[in-house]
This record gives sequence, structure tokens and C-alpha cells, in this order.
Amino acid sequence: MSERTSAYADLRKTLKNTGKNRSVFEEEIRRLPLPVVATFLVNGKIAPAGFAAVREKLPKNEHSPAVAGAFPQLYPRTGDQILQATTAGRPRVKHKRVAVLFSGGPAAGGHNVLVGLKCALGPDNALFGVQNGPKGLLEGRLFEITNRALAEIINTGGFDFLGSDRAKIETGEQFAQVKLVCQQNRLDALIIVGGDDSNTNAAFLAEHLFSDVHSDGRGVQILGVPKTIDGDLQVDGLLPISFGFDTATKIYSELVGNILQDTRSSRKYWHFVRLMGRSASHVTLEVALQTKPTVTLISEEIAEREYSLSHIVDLIGRAIVGRAAQGVDHGVVLIPEGLIEFIPEMKRLIEELNEAMLAWDKEHAAKRNLAVPKRFLLGRISAKSAKLMASLPREFADMLLDRDEHGNLQVSKIPTEKLLVEMVTARLDKMARNPEQFFGQGRGRNRRSPEEMAHFVKREFATNTHFFGYEGRCGAPSCFDAAYTFNLGLAAGSLALAGKTGYMVAIRNLNAGGKALALPLTGLIGVERRDGRDKMVIKKALVETDSPAFRFFASCRDRWCREDCFASPGPRQLWGPTASQLPMSVALNQGYSDLTFNLGKNPKRDTDKA
Amino acid sequence: MSERTSAYADLRKTLKNTGKNRSVFEEEIRRLPLPVVATFLVNGKIAPAGFAAVREKLPKNEHSPAVAGAFPQLYPRTGDQILQATTAGRPRVKHKRVAVLFSGGPAAGGHNVLVGLKCALGPDNALFGVQNGPKGLLEGRLFEITNRALAEIINTGGFDFLGSDRAKIETGEQFAQVKLVCQQNRLDALIIVGGDDSNTNAAFLAEHLFSDVHSDGRGVQILGVPKTIDGDLQVDGLLPISFGFDTATKIYSELVGNILQDTRSSRKYWHFVRLMGRSASHVTLEVALQTKPTVTLISEEIAEREYSLSHIVDLIGRAIVGRAAQGVDHGVVLIPEGLIEFIPEMKRLIEELNEAMLAWDKEHAAKRNLAVPKRFLLGRISAKSAKLMASLPREFADMLLDRDEHGNLQVSKIPTEKLLVEMVTARLDKMARNPEQFFGQGRGRNRRSPEEMAHFVKREFATNTHFFGYEGRCGAPSCFDAAYTFNLGLAAGSLALAGKTGYMVAIRNLNAGGKALALPLTGLIGVERRDGRDKMVIKKALVETDSPAFRFFASCRDRWCREDCFASPGPRQLWGPTASQLPMSVALNQGYSDLTFNLGKNPKRDTDKA
Repeated sequence: MSERTSAYADLRKTLKNTGKNRSVFEEEIRRLPLPVVATFLVNGKIAPAGFAAVREKLPKNEHSPAVAGAFPQLYPRTGDQILQATTAGRPRVKHKRVAVLFSGGPAAGGHNVLVGLKCALGPDNALFGVQNGPKGLLEGRLFEITNRALAEIINTGGFDFLGSDRAKIETGEQFAQVKLVCQQNRLDALIIVGGDDSNTNAAFLAEHLFSDVHSDGRGVQILGVPKTIDGDLQVDGLLPISFGFDTATKIYSELVGNILQDTRSSRKYWHFVRLMGRSASHVTLEVALQTKPTVTLISEEIAEREYSLSHIVDLIGRAIVGRAAQGVDHGVVLIPEGLIEFIPEMKRLIEELNEAMLAWDKEHAAKRNLAVPKRFLLGRISAKSAKLMASLPREFADMLLDRDEHGNLQVSKIPTEKLLVEMVTARLDKMARNPEQFFGQGRGRNRRSPEEMAHFVKREFATNTHFFGYEGRCGAPSCFDAAYTFNLGLAAGSLALAGKTGYMVAIRNLNAGGKALALPLTGLIGVERRDGRDKMVIKKALVETDSPAFRFFASCRDRWCREDCFASPGPRQLWGPTASQLPMSVALNQGYSDLTFNLGKNPKRDTDKA
Repeated sequence: MSERTSAYADLRKTLKNTGKNRSVFEEEIRRLPLPVVATFLVNGKIAPAGFAAVREKLPKNEHSPAVAGAFPQLYPRTGDQILQATTAGRPRVKHKRVAVLFSGGPAAGGHNVLVGLKCALGPDNALFGVQNGPKGLLEGRLFEITNRALAEIINTGGFDFLGSDRAKIETGEQFAQVKLVCQQNRLDALIIVGGDDSNTNAAFLAEHLFSDVHSDGRGVQILGVPKTIDGDLQVDGLLPISFGFDTATKIYSELVGNILQDTRSSRKYWHFVRLMGRSASHVTLEVALQTKPTVTLISEEIAEREYSLSHIVDLIGRAIVGRAAQGVDHGVVLIPEGLIEFIPEMKRLIEELNEAMLAWDKEHAAKRNLAVPKRFLLGRISAKSAKLMASLPREFADMLLDRDEHGNLQVSKIPTEKLLVEMVTARLDKMARNPEQFFGQGRGRNRRSPEEMAHFVKREFATNTHFFGYEGRCGAPSCFDAAYTFNLGLAAGSLALAGKTGYMVAIRNLNAGGKALALPLTGLIGVERRDGRDKMVIKKALVETDSPAFRFFASCRDRWCREDCFASPGPRQLWGPTASQLPMSVALNQGYSDLTFNLGKNPKRDTDKA
């Protein structure tokens, strides 16, 4: 017993000593090597690369003249010219002061961007971290990042080292405030790690701080790093994916794979799973490719084919009955977060409600935040929309009318997975009662009479719902995201030393060593209609239904629905034979011949630098 | 372009050929070696072990005479005598026919039990799988399990190969039906893979099938394998844990760790996370040890200390305000699934409601399934309970009255995490309005006036809720669960060949090679009051507040609440330096000196047997 007690004391001590924010796993991943794209190596040691113009340019768009006008200082220098990292002209600069901030939702790999930046800047230049994102920048919350601190966070998930924030820097007043902070901190460059909106704002900031920030007339360089788990920041052939997407989809894929296995084991449940990803369905498409679920909804396809909500409900209902007819009472439905606003009739309804709300606000300017009477709203929307609204379960129809403190509809908060469960349940009941209406024409194909089909409709329909989102943003980065972000950091640091401004870094040829690029933000910007007015923005990359990834998915999905093809991709591995996989959708869209990523090489213990 | 097209064609082909129920990960894990406890090895090859009585016996309990009476055939043979696997007396048996079934919810590692069984039985005996659990057994749905099939499922998660079911085999009619199925299939032994209830039923089945099943007077041997992710099937010093617990808690721990990192990154959310685990809080305790969250509720402690619901709400509310006072607006609260029924006043309320429901049913026998009028129920419960009921948010009070088709209250369906969010939000509002009432006495300690504290209460309280359950049952088994279940299968197969009946297998000394045991089911059974009557059952193992694991947790939790100690245990690894970890609570409770498990050895490619 005394031996046991002392052994217990040993373990207790070990666990106590593991300390804050530490796990056995975290201790080990800090030691994982990080590959380095060849351009950033000299004799096996990390060195910043030079950047030179290549023949390729970003495609001109119809708005290019307008963009040129909006960026009078920046556009003439950056335009649409792509730069590529080169071993020639490596910058040899000292005493530069570079700051970095995280903007928006966290994504795995952010910490390695910092490690890469610091490695590129080397001991002769200083790296500062901005606490709490754009808000912290406006407040001037900067501190110097040490190698010691980076040794703690290398390869770990989360944005916790700096924190983040959703504040937007877009007004003249804000630009002036940033200028002041840059002056006070004698900053030469500012790296913004963010998504499409943050990089749009980075472009405008680059224009405003292009010159005359410091007393000698110098400006502050602004550079962007493409981050978002949603995967909607992509540039055709140049930026295969934003960082964080791989880790997030690997986390969701494990969970969905486990649930698919569970349905095949328990044999009685249908799970409806909503997946984070804002507007675009990239996350849902990738998880579907990884797990082969029964039904997958892709918002972009639904918008393109102009499906009605009722048609989607019908589609799921028929899948359920079709499987029940084969004796299978289980399945999984994947639903992208942004679905509702992609269903044309729902989009119209929401727009009409928004206009009606605005009308109410105008009429009752003083009481703007009061709930708007339902009767008022229904009186202002079209008959079609009113009919659609009436077809929604009461609880969800009411949610459509909820506004946040800024008076905006909170459509994104509607739990679509629950809405669909409720509507599908009602539809199944209808199918059972009117089999002729639903299965009358199918007779020839499935050789069952409507009455026989009705029999299957009546079988148990037990459901569970899930929303996977926050779970995927702060996991330890996959090997891909760890390596990718480290090299994005090296690229951004090199650009800072090379004196460039107004670029977003990218790496392509992920399967063949990797090539670092600098994409001019002015070349990425187009004009989009948002909230009723034209705005200059970096376009969100949506799922394209003629992309290789979507076409592959579309060629498989009927079989996935008919048979149980469920696959379990398992938890992402940091060691072992499955550690080096790219997202399937990325590999398919880039035309790679397999899923293995192959970034740089690992000639010396390059992480010793960190 | 044509090169790219053909590369794409290659990848497309590879992905198509991955086939049904396959992923790159699943292909690789099939090749992972499985360690073998030394007793099951002869010259590096697997051989069934003999089993012999050891000095230790299960502790007698006050009910032992009653149990002896209930098991007239079995008790004299098994009693409370523990057996241990030995290298002496290895059974050399041929032509045995052994069947196996999964009972209840899935747990990771079930497939490896089958692999272990088959390896122990060898080519001279036959293994049959029962489809769809106990229900499938009653229906006689058996098929022979081949080595080829096992090569497909080795190391994979889920119960999908056989399926499972929650049907209970406990009536005389059912026993007779099982007897018939055993006769028809000429079965010599039946292995039941299940939790406490399934193993209880296994004991009664062993008694009923003890003899006279076959024409020569022979019975059918019944053996149990301890499965449940809930971890509530444990035997002090003999069975450290049931299988599936490790994988499930590793999956939940990753998710909770990720969310903790997210709160530290986003710095504005409180997440309320409910974790599966039925009555016991083992899962929640293990996840807390792994991740160090802000607040963790342990049902057993709450029952012991007789906390009221209001006290729990207060406790969470004060944690939120206390952190806000330090400028921290984020945190995570872990909630065990079974919480509600462990709060004494809630337990009383539920019991009273149940009795009132029964009274209604008696009075309205013909209309039993009709909803019971709320007024009737409130008239039948105590004033205290009525007051408690009135203190609940309307929506949740109504849920308490919901009954399933069998007339049972569906307390387990109440989303406790949402209930607590709602009640805590209301409490915070009250705290802000009456700071003197809540913070009047705290002045000395925290040196802030009630008015100052009220200031912190008003800060943003943004919440998210989660329920993690199904995600954790069917993941690919952790290295521990994979090895543990394979050896449990070897033990059960050996017992079958050795002619034993009425035992549950176990393995202890998980840190030192492992020792396989056979625990007599009759010795595990006691008498418990369930649904108002005495029942002979295997007692559920709850969290003990004087256990090493709980005491360690209790010694840390105040610091975890005060500071952000959050740890990310990461995704479970099947390869690399962190692959061999035991659950922390198991290692602590067993008095091991570190977290590494060390089961058997791996002298030859023993998985080649599979």
C-alpha cells in the first residue's frame, strides 16, 4: 500500500507540474519539425527571400479602373502584378519594427505565422504582437514577441497568445488612429492575419498609410496573411486555400465519421449536422468527401438550381423513405451554416423583411429597437413570401423576425438543422397519409405501390441534431496547417524586410515543394453589392459547381445515399503514415495526383530557430 | 493542362477505389500491431490461457445469501472466487461453437474483442456473430465470423459489423427463447459484450442455461465483457475501467480543450458543455483532469453535499463575476449528463411527479398515455417541490412533465446546459440589481464594494451550449482501448475453451504487462432499490469523492477557476510519443506512477493471426 501511495504521489506531482496551458501532447508537438520552402533556406539555414515580379498577373476585372481610382498611391505600385519569392535579392535589413495582429475568428496555425515571421526577421529586427486584434491596435496594445514566448506556442492551436477581435478598421478616423499608434511605436510594417474582409481593410489601410506616417515621409507597410476556417479566401491557381481550413475540416470530419459509424451501429438514428463556414459550403463539401454521408446539401448548388425549401425537405424525406424501403433506418444529413440565405425564395423573404423593418424604423425613428409588429411586416411582404413564411414552423418563423441591437435580422442564428428535422418529420407524416401524391409516379422504377411505400414511411424516425463550429477553430494545427502557416509567416516577414506593402502572401504548388507568392491586394479587389450599395471588397470564394471537387462529389453522392459507404477519416495524426494529407477538395481542385502535401524540406532542425 | 487533367484523373481514381467504409486512416490502422498479455503467448504465438483460482475473493456483501438463493446452480460453482489466467492448464479443445453479441450503446474497441476471441479460439473452433444484439439473439440472427471479415474491422471503431440493440433478456420466456436458439445453433458458449445491466442479465442467463440445454445435459456457458463509455462498470482493484471509456473521453477532451482555447482566443464567450455518461460523472471528471476547465460539476459530490439547484446556479454565477472582476469574460462549464437526478431536491421533485403520474394513471387507466393535466400534478406534490418547479424556466418545467410512450418521465432528455445558461443569466441580472445581497459579505476578501462588483456583473455574458455524446462512441479506438479489448477478447475466448460460465473478464496491472482475470458475476451482484422495488443487479460504480482522482481534481479546481490553466490534450494519436496514455483518472485511482500503459509485449506480428 505504501508503494502504491508513493507511486500515486509521483503521478500527482507530474500532473501538478504539467502547469498552466500544458498537456503531454502539447509538450510533444512543440518538438515537431517544420519543413521550409527552399527559397527561404541558405545552406540549410533560414533566410528571408527576395520577391520579384513574374509574368503572371491577376486577371483584370471590369472594376479595375474604379479600383485604380480608389487606390491612387498603392495601385500604381502593386496593380495586378504577382510577385514570387526568389533566392536572388535577399533583403539584408536591420532595425525594422514589425507588428502583427489576428483579426476575426481563430484558425489553427496562427501561432506558427508568428514563428515564421520571427524566423524571417531574425535577431536584427523586432516583432511586436498586437493584443486583441484590430480593437487592440486602435488602443495601441503592443508588446515585443520574444523567442522564448514563441517556443511555448509553436505548433499549438488557438489565437490565445495575442487574442483576436472582430472590430473593423475602415473609417477615416480609425485610419488616423492607426497612423498615430504606428508613429508612437515607430512601426515600419504591420501584418494583418485575417479573412476576406480583413484583407480588404488591409488594402485600404495600405493606401492610407502608404506615405507620410513618419517624419521622414515614410509610410507603414501593410501585408495580409490569408486566414479562415471557412475556406472562402482562395485565388484560382494562386492561393489554393486559407490556413485553418484543413485543421477545422479534419476535426469536423472525425466527428461526422464517428457519428456515421454510430448510426450504422445503433441502426435507428438520423443525425442532422450543421457545419460552420458562414456563406460558403467549402467546409461541408470537404467533410462530405472525407466521410461519404447519406445526404449533403451544398448552398451554392441550391442557389444555382433555385431549389425551394419544400423541395429540399422533399429530397431528404425521399432519401429517408428510400432507405427505409431497403430496411435501413439510419443516416446523416450535412447542412452548411449559410444554407438559408442561399435558398432563393428564403433570400427574397429575408430581403423583403429587411425592407419592411427599415420602413418601420423610418416611421418610428424614435423607437427603432422595439420589436416590429408581425402584422405590419406581413402586410409589407409579397404574397409568395407570406405563403413561405406561413409554411415555416411557428418557432422558426418567429426567429426570422429577431433583430440584434443594431437592428439586423439574425438569420445566421437560426438552427437550420432543427428546422429541417421539424419540416421533414411533418413531410413524412404527409407522405404516409397521401402516398399516392408522393409515390404515385415512382411505381415503375422502384416496383412498389404507393401503399407499400407508405408502409416504410411509418417506420421510426429518431433524430439527433448537431452544430459543429467552435470545436474546429482552435485545435492544434494539422501537419499541413502547421507547415503552411510557418511558411506564410516566412513569406510575410520576407516581404516586410523587402519593403513591400499592399500584398497578401500565398503559397502554391503544395504538392511539389511549395512556391511563395505575394498577391497585390488591389488586384484582388472587385465591386460587390452589399447591404444595398456597391462596395469594394475581396470577393468571397464560393463553391463552384463546375469545380473538380464538386463534380467528384456529385458523381458519388447518389451511391452514398443508396448504400452505406460511410468512411471514418479518424482523428488527425501528427505522427505516423497518415499525417501528411491535404484536404481532398484542395487536392482535387489543384489537380494534384494524390493527397500528400510536400512542402519544402527539413535539412536542419530549423525549429531550433524559434 | 493535360498533365493536370491526368493527375486529377489519378486522384479521382484513387478516391473512387478507396471503396465503401474505407479511409486512408482506416487502411493504416488495420496494420497497427496489438500487444499480447504474456499469459496468452507460447513461444511468441497466441494460445488460450488456463484459468485458476487465486487467493483473493470478491468482498462478501450483506446480500450474498440472497444472491446464493437466486443462483442455485451457478453460485456453488462461481460464488465470489476470482480466477486468474495462467500459463498452466491451457485448454486444448476442438469443435467448440461460440457466439458473441454487443448489447447497448456502442463503445470503441468492440471489433477488437471479436479479433481477440477468434485468435483465442483458433482454427479448431468456430466463432459466430449475433446481429443486432439481444434482439437479434432472440431472433436467431447468427452468422460465422471469418478471419477475412476480421481483417477488415480490426482496430476500427463502431459496432457496425454486428450492430447492437438495447433489448433486455430477463424474462423466463426470453430465457427459453435463447435456449432454443442455442439448441438450434448447437452453441457451447455465448459472450455478451455489455455494461452493468447486460452483465446482470448475463448472470441470470448463465443460471438458466447452466445445464440441460443440449440433449446430453450440457448447458451453455455465458461470459461477459465489460463495455461502456460511461466508465461506471469498475471493480475496485480488479477491473480498473470498462472499455470505450478511454476513447470517448479522449474525443471529448480534445473538443473541450479546443473550446477552452477558443474562449481564450475570442475572449468573450462562456461555453456550457454537457457530457454523456448517464448517471455517473466519470467521463466529466476525466475530461476535467485532461483540460482544466473553469467550472466542473460532479453529480456525486452535489448529491453528497446536498446542493440545491439554486446553489449550483449561484456557484457558476459567482465564478463568472469573479473572473469578470479580473477582466476575464470567458470560461467553460462542464456538466455531467446525469446531473439533474443527483440534485436532492430535483430527485425528490421527480419522484413526487412520478408518483403523481402513477396516481393519475390508476384513476384513468383507460387513457394512460394522455398528457396529465399540470394542475393535477401540482396538487399532488409537496409545497417544497412545487416551489422548486415554479423556480424553473417555464420551458424546462414543462419538459419535466413529458413522458415517453411507456409513461416514463424523460428527465434524461432535458438539456441541462441550456437550463443552467438560462438560470445563470437570470441570476446575474439579479446580482446586478441587488449587489448588496450577493456581495455584501465578500467585501473583506475581495476588497471590492457591492457596487463595484455589480459593475462587473453587467459585462457581456455571451454563451454557447454543447452536448457531446454520440461523437465519442464510435471513433477508432485509442491505442489503449485497441490493446485492452483485444486482450479482453483473448481472455473471454480462453474462458470459453476452459469450460467456464458465469464470469466477466477483466485485466488489471495495466501499467505492468497486464493480468487477465475472471470475475464471478454472482460475486458482483447485490441488491438495489430500483423503480420502487428490490432488484438484484451489478452495482453501478459512481465517482467516489474520496478517490484519488476526485481528490486530485478537488485540490486543483479553485486555481483552474481563478486562472486560465486550460490544457489542450489534442486529438488522440495512434502513432508517436503520446499514443500510450491511460485515462488520468484511471492511473490516479490505480496508484500508477505515470500515465503510460504497458500491456503485454509484441514479440511476433500477432495481428497476422487476425
